[in-house]
Amino acid sequence: MAHDAPLSPLAPKTYPKLPAIDGVRFATGEGGIRYMGRTDILLALMDEGTTVAGVFTRSKCPSAPVDWCRANLSGGTARALVVNSGNANAFTGKAGLASVQLTAQIAAKATGARQSEIFLASTGVIGEPLDARKFDGILGELAAKAQPLAMLDAARAIMTTDTFPKVATLTAKIDGVLVTISGIAKGAGMIAPDMATMLSFVFTDAPIAAPALQAMLSAAVKLSFNAITVDSDTSTSDTLMLFATGAAHARGCPKISSAKDMRLSGFKRALNKLLLNLAHQVVKDGEGARKFIEVKVSGAQSARAAKVIALSIANSPLVKTAIAGEDANWGRVVMAVGKAGEKAERDKLSISFGGIRVAANGERVPDYNEAQVSTKMQQENISIHAELGIGRGSATVWTCDLTKAYVEINGDYRS
Amino acid sequence: MAHDAPLSPLAPKTYPKLPAIDGVRFATGEGGIRYMGRTDILLALMDEGTTVAGVFTRSKCPSAPVDWCRANLSGGTARALVVNSGNANAFTGKAGLASVQLTAQIAAKATGARQSEIFLASTGVIGEPLDARKFDGILGELAAKAQPLAMLDAARAIMTTDTFPKVATLTAKIDGVLVTISGIAKGAGMIAPDMATMLSFVFTDAPIAAPALQAMLSAAVKLSFNAITVDSDTSTSDTLMLFATGAAHARGCPKISSAKDMRLSGFKRALNKLLLNLAHQVVKDGEGARKFIEVKVSGAQSARAAKVIALSIANSPLVKTAIAGEDANWGRVVMAVGKAGEKAERDKLSISFGGIRVAANGERVPDYNEAQVSTKMQQENISIHAELGIGRGSATVWTCDLTKAYVEINGDYRS
Repeated sequence: MAHDAPLSPLAPKTYPKLPAIDGVRFATGEGGIRYMGRTDILLALMDEGTTVAGVFTRSKCPSAPVDWCRANLSGGTARALVVNSGNANAFTGKAGLASVQLTAQIAAKATGARQSEIFLASTGVIGEPLDARKFDGILGELAAKAQPLAMLDAARAIMTTDTFPKVATLTAKIDGVLVTISGIAKGAGMIAPDMATMLSFVFTDAPIAAPALQAMLSAAVKLSFNAITVDSDTSTSDTLMLFATGAAHARGCPKISSAKDMRLSGFKRALNKLLLNLAHQVVKDGEGARKFIEVKVSGAQSARAAKVIALSIANSPLVKTAIAGEDANWGRVVMAVGKAGEKAERDKLSISFGGIRVAANGERVPDYNEAQVSTKMQQENISIHAELGIGRGSATVWTCDLTKAYVEINGDYRS
Repeated sequence: MAHDAPLSPLAPKTYPKLPAIDGVRFATGEGGIRYMGRTDILLALMDEGTTVAGVFTRSKCPSAPVDWCRANLSGGTARALVVNSGNANAFTGKAGLASVQLTAQIAAKATGARQSEIFLASTGVIGEPLDARKFDGILGELAAKAQPLAMLDAARAIMTTDTFPKVATLTAKIDGVLVTISGIAKGAGMIAPDMATMLSFVFTDAPIAAPALQAMLSAAVKLSFNAITVDSDTSTSDTLMLFATGAAHARGCPKISSAKDMRLSGFKRALNKLLLNLAHQVVKDGEGARKFIEVKVSGAQSARAAKVIALSIANSPLVKTAIAGEDANWGRVVMAVGKAGEKAERDKLSISFGGIRVAANGERVPDYNEAQVSTKMQQENISIHAELGIGRGSATVWTCDLTKAYVEINGDYRS
């Protein structure tokens, strides 16, 4: 269970102070869905006029809450978010659909929001029916006590095997007016015997129309959550949502309707940075992770090709076990470049570890300083750079190492 | 090193007796390329008129010997095969090319074969120059002592971290005349700190023209070597070659020029069976393997889609660790089906372990016998079957479990 895992060595040393976001309130409670003695239900309430955007798993077998959110997203507005941990309500058939419908009914009654403005997410066990009656009573209580400063509690309530809560906050200026963006996330942890999920919820007081919000979120996710991998396995429930209350309008912030509006440039930078921060925290809490690895590919035929190659490196069990062994095994990087299927020319390929070039033009660099590379490999942050020398496409992705602890967490629970 | 690893629990209990293949002789020797006190060079000599076919890694960074073989294959004939273990001669730049050229020169001198009829394969360390002078002298000795019954020795000489030699033999009839097909293989083992390779060489006395041989080999590989995975990582050096001496013609076997010749049906069946046998042995000697897993996907939109989904299941670290933990974790199978990107309908999907259906129509089977499933999961041979219920495409692939020993073999050698 989540509580037994030791804190990831890559966990942040402190958590940032999370300011209130005008128009958002949080409350958490103990539903006893699977865990005992900890919170497992989050309710977030948003003021009228809040716009919403979302990006979801590309799994062909998505969970019932993912189906629900996709359907509601077309409305473009949100008043409430209900998240539970402990049960993913995935692969639960008609019972799963009935469960999200009942949850939404209960939430609508508790919050006064229309069902079409209620968003749902679940994480935890797959294939177990989720008894939505557990939300009855509790959501009413949570609605009554919701308050703006409970965001760290919110991050804790959605954890499964995460070893630390994941939060981030930034400010940006839109037309000179300061707005805040804060977010929470949970990582790809495992609960025996089932798969968990990546969830992230981001809130801002900026007044941005839903289509503009969606365009920015879809763009930002490519460089953050869609550029990380712990073990190449994609959950049925991955959910990232961005809620914008628009409260900053009262402070003079103009309403923005297009993602192309130049006044959004600072906001976009902040959003990208915040999502990347949360995505990195997910990797740093990857199961069994001891090393945080940045994989950069440059000189590829296109940015798309660069990303395919970078993910091939980042997902290679041989590369990941080598890093766990603190070995600058560039031969395995060559292998991963070669198997990616994208254009590569062996004799133009160069590879660096920690900024030190170990292979160039298709051969080992004969005189590189092995002791220096070895020192780099002993650090917590590892960088791998493959320069293909055939074009201008580049991409960066992040992953963690593959350790015995990963196998233990995911395979040994029966022993 | 190879010698230290304990014998795989999935190793065969006995090796088949390998009959002589008319027109093929083998010899092995100690080149001291990397290993000491064991053979690491194989020379196979084929009589004049031997035809040849080959299938190679799809890596964009292939080894120098792979480049060499591809170039020579167009000639369609073979007289000698030289294989070394301990050094893959991969990612060695111009030195690699010079090394294969020198090896071929030495082999031509030792055997009297033309360089265009000499095939080369290397397996072991990546990125280290291979000193071809090590073949000088030795290949002459081997040519002198080569003999038909040394095939098990041949299988031993090409091992790297394999824990057992891989051999198989079968007979087939062509137009009533008995022919023999025998083959050897080595598996995807690792030698710290480098990647090794899948190599397989198959020999027959059947008189079959090179284009027909190639067509049959390319077809057969899809259902055998291209349907196995240990860890999703593709080597720079994968090589499968089929040599046909034609010696059976002297015993009345007709010369066959087309793969579509109906008289080849028995031979094709035998070839497919032999390659599958060797491929299974490679999986059974996968690093850290304790379980042999068959993944069958049926009811998919097409055979191609079925194979993509089957490989998604077989390559999923979460599925593989679950099997290591003897857990029939069908939720992870759902996840792997969902992430494969091929058409799937959650509510039509059914999953069985060991022939027992645990999930059907998008939901857990409520009353399946858990004790019975648990017993199945404790066995060495595990079968997973996903029925998609949307079409007629099916595919079967094989893999092994992901254990702590895998991580240990590939990551812990520095400790």
